[in-house]
Amino acid sequence: MVTAVILLGDMIIIIRPDTSQEEIDYVISKLKDKKLRPVPLVGVERTVIAVIGDDCATSMDGISALSAVERVMPVSKPYKLVSREAKEEGTVVTVDGVKIGGKEVVVIAGPCAVESEEQVLETAKAVKKAGAKILRGGAFKPRTAPYSFQGLGEEGLKILAKAREETGLPIVTEAMDVRSVELVAKYADIIQVGSRNMQNFSLLKEVGCLNKPVLLKRGASATLTEFLMAAEYIMLEGNHQIILCERGICSFSDHTRNTLDLSIIPLVKTLTHLPIIVDPSHATGKYELITPMSKAALAAGADGLMVEVHCDPEKALSDAGQSLKPKDFVQLMKELKPLVKGLGREV
Amino acid sequence: MVTAVILLGDMIIIIRPDTSQEEIDYVISKLKDKKLRPVPLVGVERTVIAVIGDDCATSMDGISALSAVERVMPVSKPYKLVSREAKEEGTVVTVDGVKIGGKEVVVIAGPCAVESEEQVLETAKAVKKAGAKILRGGAFKPRTAPYSFQGLGEEGLKILAKAREETGLPIVTEAMDVRSVELVAKYADIIQVGSRNMQNFSLLKEVGCLNKPVLLKRGASATLTEFLMAAEYIMLEGNHQIILCERGICSFSDHTRNTLDLSIIPLVKTLTHLPIIVDPSHATGKYELITPMSKAALAAGADGLMVEVHCDPEKALSDAGQSLKPKDFVQLMKELKPLVKGLGREV
Amino acid sequence: MVTAVILLGDMIIIIRPDTSQEEIDYVISKLKDKKLRPVPLVGVERTVIAVIGDDCATSMDGISALSAVERVMPVSKPYKLVSREAKEEGTVVTVDGVKIGGKEVVVIAGPCAVESEEQVLETAKAVKKAGAKILRGGAFKPRTAPYSFQGLGEEGLKILAKAREETGLPIVTEAMDVRSVELVAKYADIIQVGSRNMQNFSLLKEVGCLNKPVLLKRGASATLTEFLMAAEYIMLEGNHQIILCERGICSFSDHTRNTLDLSIIPLVKTLTHLPIIVDPSHATGKYELITPMSKAALAAGADGLMVEVHCDPEKALSDAGQSLKPKDFVQLMKELKPLVKGLGREV
Amino acid sequence: MVTAVILLGDMIIIIRPDTSQEEIDYVISKLKDKKLRPVPLVGVERTVIAVIGDDCATSMDGISALSAVERVMPVSKPYKLVSREAKEEGTVVTVDGVKIGGKEVVVIAGPCAVESEEQVLETAKAVKKAGAKILRGGAFKPRTAPYSFQGLGEEGLKILAKAREETGLPIVTEAMDVRSVELVAKYADIIQVGSRNMQNFSLLKEVGCLNKPVLLKRGASATLTEFLMAAEYIMLEGNHQIILCERGICSFSDHTRNTLDLSIIPLVKTLTHLPIIVDPSHATGKYELITPMSKAALAAGADGLMVEVHCDPEKALSDAGQSLKPKDFVQLMKELKPLVKGLGREV
Repeated sequence: MVTAVILLGDMIIIIRPDTSQEEIDYVISKLKDKKLRPVPLVGVERTVIAVIGDDCATSMDGISALSAVERVMPVSKPYKLVSREAKEEGTVVTVDGVKIGGKEVVVIAGPCAVESEEQVLETAKAVKKAGAKILRGGAFKPRTAPYSFQGLGEEGLKILAKAREETGLPIVTEAMDVRSVELVAKYADIIQVGSRNMQNFSLLKEVGCLNKPVLLKRGASATLTEFLMAAEYIMLEGNHQIILCERGICSFSDHTRNTLDLSIIPLVKTLTHLPIIVDPSHATGKYELITPMSKAALAAGADGLMVEVHCDPEKALSDAGQSLKPKDFVQLMKELKPLVKGLGREV
Repeated sequence: MVTAVILLGDMIIIIRPDTSQEEIDYVISKLKDKKLRPVPLVGVERTVIAVIGDDCATSMDGISALSAVERVMPVSKPYKLVSREAKEEGTVVTVDGVKIGGKEVVVIAGPCAVESEEQVLETAKAVKKAGAKILRGGAFKPRTAPYSFQGLGEEGLKILAKAREETGLPIVTEAMDVRSVELVAKYADIIQVGSRNMQNFSLLKEVGCLNKPVLLKRGASATLTEFLMAAEYIMLEGNHQIILCERGICSFSDHTRNTLDLSIIPLVKTLTHLPIIVDPSHATGKYELITPMSKAALAAGADGLMVEVHCDPEKALSDAGQSLKPKDFVQLMKELKPLVKGLGREV
Repeated sequence: MVTAVILLGDMIIIIRPDTSQEEIDYVISKLKDKKLRPVPLVGVERTVIAVIGDDCATSMDGISALSAVERVMPVSKPYKLVSREAKEEGTVVTVDGVKIGGKEVVVIAGPCAVESEEQVLETAKAVKKAGAKILRGGAFKPRTAPYSFQGLGEEGLKILAKAREETGLPIVTEAMDVRSVELVAKYADIIQVGSRNMQNFSLLKEVGCLNKPVLLKRGASATLTEFLMAAEYIMLEGNHQIILCERGICSFSDHTRNTLDLSIIPLVKTLTHLPIIVDPSHATGKYELITPMSKAALAAGADGLMVEVHCDPEKALSDAGQSLKPKDFVQLMKELKPLVKGLGREV
Repeated sequence: MVTAVILLGDMIIIIRPDTSQEEIDYVISKLKDKKLRPVPLVGVERTVIAVIGDDCATSMDGISALSAVERVMPVSKPYKLVSREAKEEGTVVTVDGVKIGGKEVVVIAGPCAVESEEQVLETAKAVKKAGAKILRGGAFKPRTAPYSFQGLGEEGLKILAKAREETGLPIVTEAMDVRSVELVAKYADIIQVGSRNMQNFSLLKEVGCLNKPVLLKRGASATLTEFLMAAEYIMLEGNHQIILCERGICSFSDHTRNTLDLSIIPLVKTLTHLPIIVDPSHATGKYELITPMSKAALAAGADGLMVEVHCDPEKALSDAGQSLKPKDFVQLMKELKPLVKGLGREV
């Protein structure tokens, strides 16, 4: 039995067992056609061929279709601009004086959905007083059911702008499609790309053309690499102000709405220069888990939190079960202080 | 210990253990505020309160935030228009004389991406000859990496239209965002909503306004209910010509690109009146699995298949490893015939 | 359309749509046969029947097979002895003076496998000096491949006993099957039931008969309920000294060996009286993630950690890539101190 | 930036970016210490070192702990005896004249649990008449809850033996731990290793010493490789009569109890010489899905089915909701006939 393995700068090609020399030669000739340099190595029970090239990954389409090829394995990272190699120092995204990605931990808080001026203003004032630095709230709401409250639209954006005026808090809110980006950008300080839109590549390109920070939430089925590739889409258009956000992934584990995957945080900090925050509200779907998971997120190295707070959850039109009341948010902020100090950061 | 359980037409509310009567009464008063009818039941170790209402689900936001409430469980199905209850006989989507959802099994075939006129025409002629009834091909391609081939755009749509002209095969192709729907609809016979866009609600509403069949692919992390709710979004806008498509879900199981979840097929047929087809190419990511999984899909009750075929996979610009060559597609169609007959259907 | 819903103390039965009154009556008669009390309720679009009983769950086998029944949903928790309701104050497991589940956070450390006396003694002394309170090490090793090092067996247990003698650290080590429990119990202070054996019910019953603490690791595909039911198996035999351990679950997310599911910690603390610790080494499979995930685990409320430390990872016979060197463990313990203080606990 | 990649016969070592030449040299020296042959290759942006060795995988523990090493990737398959390379022709397991793995598709049927002599005999006669070739039934039952029916033990085995005597059907039943293997083997024709015990390595070794066929069910969180490694454990002890069984994996998809992963079937047939069957009852947990998923399993290439049939599901003590009634089993067998013929096999 002779198996051949072919190695490239970016990719490794593994040949099926019992492949004839003619077929291996055919693979090599195809690689040469693509201007790559194959190097043969004869091993104990297999022949190994290494191929060196400048930009192998993009030349590899088609190679995987050759009958001699068992699989093509990536070696290099497919992202470039977001990588630590591309920029060694961490990116600090600054929004109206608030720095995300620095020594200070930033807490974003506010209602899931904008429901009324009173609700937003009351909540905004409460979270500001408790120490939140940025206000969140959805004007366009992605809801599983078409029968659920879909958000107030531009009316909601105007309410958020008014809350900013009254409290001084910058605002983050979601743009759901390419058509509404311009409108949302008119009002928002940070544009959110939601979890379900993480691979809405048209939307990624659109927000990539803005000169405004983007909060990119991880998709429920996105691997670390897919998450970073989504950020790469935005950055490739010129927008370098990206804040990543872990918000839970799908798994069989059914005690929370999603499974919060905190181990991604230290890896994101190693592999990229981008800041990352955590949304414990959507991840768990349970208000009683927000405080412990907020602490865990910061302990794992997150640069901030995004927490749902509603001045009267019992009247909320969405996600009521995962919202903190203002007094619970005050308690959360109080408990975070000694923890953050113990981590050598500030809040 | 007294636990109370509250039952609604659409939802059941489970009360936390050791809740006081005052708190239970508060929950009941809140339900009455919402015009629902609560009915108390005293059990052995818990008090049970049933509440009857017309449209409970949409009245429930806020109830889950009450401290006495442990969880709110859905009882009824949240989808209405797509359900079998709404329409007993199965929907047959007719495209230029081809019927999807009838006795005949329909095979859609073609390249992953439109790359050139020659490639599409050669492939289209080959798949037609082998028995395919509809041509697939992407002009706008959602790719994980921004560095990968992104499709030919309108140029690709024109090539598809030319292939239709020459072969008579209707064409299905993807619209990636609300902005391109109109353009794609100008050329396509069926508009595809891709897996990553299954919860792009703006796009769902947009295609819901068309008078053209929509092929809706299941998201990689979508439950059966979320999948059907996405179809409900489309149907609520007036478009009833929907074809569902299972294409694999994310799981830990790493021998295929995604895990093909065929057990959804008989459930979709029971719960809804919509036809469902299967895409074994994207689900498995391996061309050698296309034939066995195509057979399995039809045996499970699928109304059709969507298979990637490329006239020269070695030159393909995307998904080469999961494309059949025309001669393999001929073999697939040949093997399907006796199987389909054994299932009491036709191909 | 008439749908009937039947509610029991422990279970709710949901009737299929369009079920006839005769069939509903048949379900009711079956419930009465089982000595349960059904209560009918007539709703807007469905008939609701509630049934009250003492111990419904165990009476329900068979009901789900009735053709009128769509599904049977659990309402109550199926575990009793491990629940907070059964015992309000938290269980503190004491091992040779070390308390797990109290105010102090306990760190267990040591090599994955016992390889030699020198290796264990050197590592044991190092971890003790750095602040570990319990020594871990495997004498019987569950390995995916039969060709991998399977552990030293009793020879390994003797080495662990010697390390206890020299350092005073109590030891925790795994029993892999019912036959070796007695032998392991002769040497160990805490018996570990490994992740792959979490539903080895024979083994659970066997360690349940011991008068020795058990460390029960969560299975990679175990839900919270299944995890607690495994503990219930042990406790039902009479052994109440159980320490739970979260060590990661399987998911599509491929940047770590398993996905550490920290949100289970606050829920375990709410639902049960048992202590819970976290194993960040097996969960992540990457030594560089041990420190951040250890911090996150404690911040989420864990009562302790179990960390792999090897005096010379480069020579390790298993799991080398997820072991800390003694100097890195010293650093970890140093970093944990201010954090634990910030959490209001001690280490 | 210089990255080094090191290639071995069995494993590929990827070096972290920006590693110094000294560190790379250190890795090379470590590999030479292990009697492996490293071969350096200088690439465009990285240095590549290939190492050839006889049995690299088992020499690699420790290498992953070197600070220069980013990851170690397997190239070869870790299983040997079960692989197609080890034995080209497919294994046919013969049980009392019944051949599993041949042209004929074999259906195993019977109750989940042995409950009484009448129940087993009635069911056995019914399934035999309908065409089943082997009788299934559990005497030792692994149940999630300790409060559920745990099986009749040896009394159950005697009932199964009596059913064999009366019907001539060989029997398959589960052994739950090493201690009961001998007892079970005394009565059973095929020993089942259950899903939860797939990585109970002590049990695998124990049944590996028997001269009796083993039915090995895939664990709910087992990858294809882990599944085959479990079979390798059995075969390494000398027992080559192994039948694999797919029975569903854990995933977020909640419409079935587990997610039936049928794409494993054609891969198992390619990679190994072992037969594989499918259990649609446990996989789906819903009796109405048994027929479509049985068909799908056979269409995907399965060598047989294991189906739960109970003469009176309404009285079943376990898994009632996923059992067929005898008359439905007759219908299933009838529907399978033309399908199996269409697949070119027999039943």
